Amino acid sequence: MTRIQYQECIDACIQTMNACNYSYVSSLKQYDLASLRESIRLDRECADICSFAVQAMTRQSPFVAEILRLCAEICERCADESSKHIHTHCQECINACRAAAKACRLISDTVEVYA
Amino acid sequence: MTRIQYQECIDACIQTMNACNYSYVSSLKQYDLASLRESIRLDRECADICSFAVQAMTRQSPFVAEILRLCAEICERCADESSKHIHTHCQECINACRAAAKACRLISDTVEVYA
Amino acid sequence: MTRIQYQECIDACIQTMNACNYSYVSSLKQYDLASLRESIRLDRECADICSFAVQAMTRQSPFVAEILRLCAEICERCADESSKHIHTHCQECINACRAAAKACRLISDTVEVYA
Amino acid sequence: MTRIQYQECIDACIQTMNACNYSYVSSLKQYDLASLRESIRLDRECADICSFAVQAMTRQSPFVAEILRLCAEICERCADESSKHIHTHCQECINACRAAAKACRLISDTVEVYA
Repeated sequence: MTRIQYQECIDACIQTMNACNYSYVSSLKQYDLASLRESIRLDRECADICSFAVQAMTRQSPFVAEILRLCAEICERCADESSKHIHTHCQECINACRAAAKACRLISDTVEVYA
Repeated sequence: MTRIQYQECIDACIQTMNACNYSYVSSLKQYDLASLRESIRLDRECADICSFAVQAMTRQSPFVAEILRLCAEICERCADESSKHIHTHCQECINACRAAAKACRLISDTVEVYA
Repeated sequence: MTRIQYQECIDACIQTMNACNYSYVSSLKQYDLASLRESIRLDRECADICSFAVQAMTRQSPFVAEILRLCAEICERCADESSKHIHTHCQECINACRAAAKACRLISDTVEVYA
Repeated sequence: MTRIQYQECIDACIQTMNACNYSYVSSLKQYDLASLRESIRLDRECADICSFAVQAMTRQSPFVAEILRLCAEICERCADESSKHIHTHCQECINACRAAAKACRLISDTVEVYA
């Protein structure tokens, strides 16, 4: 699998990192901060694994399949949590996270596991 | 699970990151560099996931079990590759990686998966 | 400069990452969450640069001096913010951050800048 | 400064991370591996700081100016080293690194330092 074949997933993960970090910063400014505690935590979790996944794809890590499987799980969990909130930044998170999860699973399900 | 319960695993991962990065730098200085290509790549993979795992444990990530399972896999693969080489830094890597893999599995097998 | 010469600074940065991430998680659980917004942000900033600095030291980065100078600045800022709060985890942060800042400056002021 | 104002720099840093990691992997496969030792090291340094810088910009870090200044320095050093080699992946690195360095300096020179 080449750089080009990962490109769509790289883009999706970058957008999710961006959306999650934006939601993180925005949530910390909200009046209803207390109801966003879990969302803040998951935004950071999701941004961090997305950043890690992007690095792994660009360095053609032999563990891409496993890393993207984990990334997909965390993106899905973050989307679930974001869907409990009506803020615009939370809604943007949902879409980005679901798209990244799908792109990650597409690769993790097809890449031959390192053996 | 508290900070203290992770401490042994945090220490093992830090030692592995240290050993792998030291091995990485040392390998790049070796005369027989060509035979160490795969080892250099895996040293970086292993150092990066260990660093990520330490951050995850210290921030009490809800995904600690999954992250440590991945970390254990990569540590084991790095230990296998290092065992093909006789350099002292490779031997140090093996021991650190195996200890970290064991510590990671101990937690990932017992921590309730986030639900 | 060898691995051993960095060891004290590595330990100080790890302790700070640990203290900041613990404070981050603890702050998100506090009743007076709203007053801790800035502290939460700086805890993450500080944990992330400390983690980066530890990786850089263990891989003998040619940019250790510059990275540790930046790490010291962020640690100091985080200590200043933490000192506005009376929570135990904030107090623990102050001590860890100040010790790490000192250890970082000790190296960044003496290491020959990469040339 | 908003997300949109950072966008060009985020894109430049992502492209550089990509180019450096690709060059890293490619260099490790080269026949003339021994002459690429320093290039391999700097590719990793550059990819890591670019990844860190992207995370920092997307989370609107109060230390963006300082982080981007450091990123620019490392990008420039990596471009200098890459310019010693004729491989296509090294040439691609030069262009990406110089563009990222320029984009980073544009922001670091204008953003008000955190005070």
